[in-house]
Formats: sequence, C-alpha cells, structure tokens
Amino acid sequence: MSEQENLQVVEHFWKGFERRDFEATSELLHSDYLGEWPQTGERVRGKSNFVTINQSYPEQWQVTVMRMVASGNQVVSEVKLTYQEEIVYAISFFELLDGKIMKETDYWPEPYDPPAWRAPWVE
Amino acid sequence: MSEQENLQVVEHFWKGFERRDFEATSELLHSDYLGEWPQTGERVRGKSNFVTINQSYPEQWQVTVMRMVASGNQVVSEVKLTYQEEIVYAISFFELLDGKIMKETDYWPEPYDPPAWRAPWVE
Repeated sequence: MSEQENLQVVEHFWKGFERRDFEATSELLHSDYLGEWPQTGERVRGKSNFVTINQSYPEQWQVTVMRMVASGNQVVSEVKLTYQEEIVYAISFFELLDGKIMKETDYWPEPYDPPAWRAPWVE
Repeated sequence: MSEQENLQVVEHFWKGFERRDFEATSELLHSDYLGEWPQTGERVRGKSNFVTINQSYPEQWQVTVMRMVASGNQVVSEVKLTYQEEIVYAISFFELLDGKIMKETDYWPEPYDPPAWRAPWVE
C-alpha cells in the first residue's frame, strides 16, 4: 500500500472516532492489532478489546487532526481532542500492513501551566 | 535536502541534548527557529532563547531515541528521557529547511497509573 493509502486509513480512523462508531473503525484494524500506551504500560490486543475500551468512554470529544506524517508503512498523527473546556492531545504512531492498522502507539499529553522561571525566554 | 539528511540532523540534535551541548545543538537550528509547546502554549523563538532555556534544566537526562519518521521536510521523533527513576517521553515534530530546524513542536507526555476500570481489556 502507498503512503497515500495509509494516510487515508488513518483519516478514516479518526473520522470513526469522532462519530464514536468503533465497530466500523475496528474494520480498519488488522486481526493481530496491538495498541500500546507507553505512559501506563498498557497494551490493547485485538479488535474486540479496542471496541469495548473505546465504547466505555462516555464523552463526546471533538476530534481535530492537526497533522499527519506518512513514511513507508508508518503514519504519525497529531490530534487535538476537545470536550467543552477540556483539551487533550493524542499523538499516535500507526504501523500498517496491507492497508490495515497492525500497531498503534499512543501518547496523551495534557495541558499544564507554564513554569514561571522560563517566562523571560518564551512568548 | 533529502529525508535521510533531515533524519541525520535530528539524530545530531538528540545527541547534542544528551551531551548537554546546547550551543553546538543550536547550530542545527535555522536563524528563524520557532519552538512550540502546545501543552503550555509557550513559544521559544531564536537560537539564543533555545540555548538559555535548555541550559536552565539541571538534570542529567539519558536520551533514548525510540523511533524517527521522516517525510518530505518533516521528521517526527519518539524519545524516552530517563533520569534516575523518573521517565518522561518527548514527541517532537521537526520541520526543516535547507538542512536546518525551522520549527519544532514538542509534547511531553508523562507516565501515570492505569485506571482500574479498563483492566479487563488490557495486558
């Protein structure tokens, strides 16, 4: 599959998230799908666990894809998730095989207050 | 510049970080360098501010580059920073021009305890 086709798979992935249609989204996953969350050390294996976990989140997040970078079999996405006043970022590294997402490594950086000491050197 | 050359620039960038040689590292930056930290909304503009801010961090972090993805003028790096027992990740989106880093967007996701509710579906 071309980088362009892989990009489209990840685009569909995030559109599925915004619709909260995780059954349909899971059709973009390889049968050996593995999700990794390095911040907690958790791993999600297989489509069924993917669907159940994501359905367990009640919130209606608005998904804004800010950037996607595709190279070879990899796609990286930089996404902003907004729910009312709350913002969280999702940085995801996707590895694809035959047009399906085989592996996904997710980071969820949250906003925080800038430290005062470095104020003189930032805008 | 080729994607391979851009990758090498970012490799040198992280090697400079590990050595804490920020003066040398700043030579990899474009004169119009802009660093963006979406989590705090801060921006660091120019080589001199880059050097001062990074020199202000006293810790001796060990830098492990886990992955780099290059496409066109962009390079994404997934880095693990370790200091004694402390771990933090650095996900950075670099945009290069003529072999220099023009823009850098950084996220710093920190480890946290996995929530109990999703334990049945993760490893």
